[in-house]
Amino acid sequence: MSKQTLTVLEPDVCCAPLATSAVPAEAAADLAASFKALGDPVRLQLMSMIASADGGEACVCDLTPAFDLTGPTISHHLKVLREAGLVESDRRGTWVWYRANRPRLAALSALLDVAPAA
Amino acid sequence: MSKQTLTVLEPDVCCAPLATSAVPAEAAADLAASFKALGDPVRLQLMSMIASADGGEACVCDLTPAFDLTGPTISHHLKVLREAGLVESDRRGTWVWYRANRPRLAALSALLDVAPAA
Repeated sequence: MSKQTLTVLEPDVCCAPLATSAVPAEAAADLAASFKALGDPVRLQLMSMIASADGGEACVCDLTPAFDLTGPTISHHLKVLREAGLVESDRRGTWVWYRANRPRLAALSALLDVAPAA
Repeated sequence: MSKQTLTVLEPDVCCAPLATSAVPAEAAADLAASFKALGDPVRLQLMSMIASADGGEACVCDLTPAFDLTGPTISHHLKVLREAGLVESDRRGTWVWYRANRPRLAALSALLDVAPAA
């Protein structure tokens, strides 16, 4: 697992809906990394719990009990989300708190935004 | 790789934005499978080429030359997209044609649709 932090692309590269133009190769790797991080049921649930948390942030102490998984496993999934640029975190006292990277989610949403029917 | 066709979930399950409520476990597996399929640069490019194709469909004969990859590799990626419910295909004569599953893409877009700033 790479520890490299992904750079959020410029809006004009990342946000053109894929139904209007082909995704350039250089943008595809960055965007695919975010989709890959969302491509796990536990990570998708974690992402939604963080994004929908009261006050816009969630403590790892509140996230872990929602799953039948160990703390280290949850921490690993949160690290994958963070490395994919989907969440940001900071430690306050004993616990780490997570916030959604809303511009990043909005860019991914815009990319997939198509008319429901042709 | 499972050959099972994924069932598209009911809109009220799949489309509640993750910033408003946590994704239920039973929906997370299905949705994560689609994100996982998009979590590869080549598949993301293929998806965009199909979704943005003139007339709404793309021939595999037009998709393959755009990549420095073999025909079987491209066919494998297209199969992954199809099994994840993201594209539909039919064979006409020699070639297979692909169309985006627009309701599925729209549902994924709605899921990630958040206000860009808190």
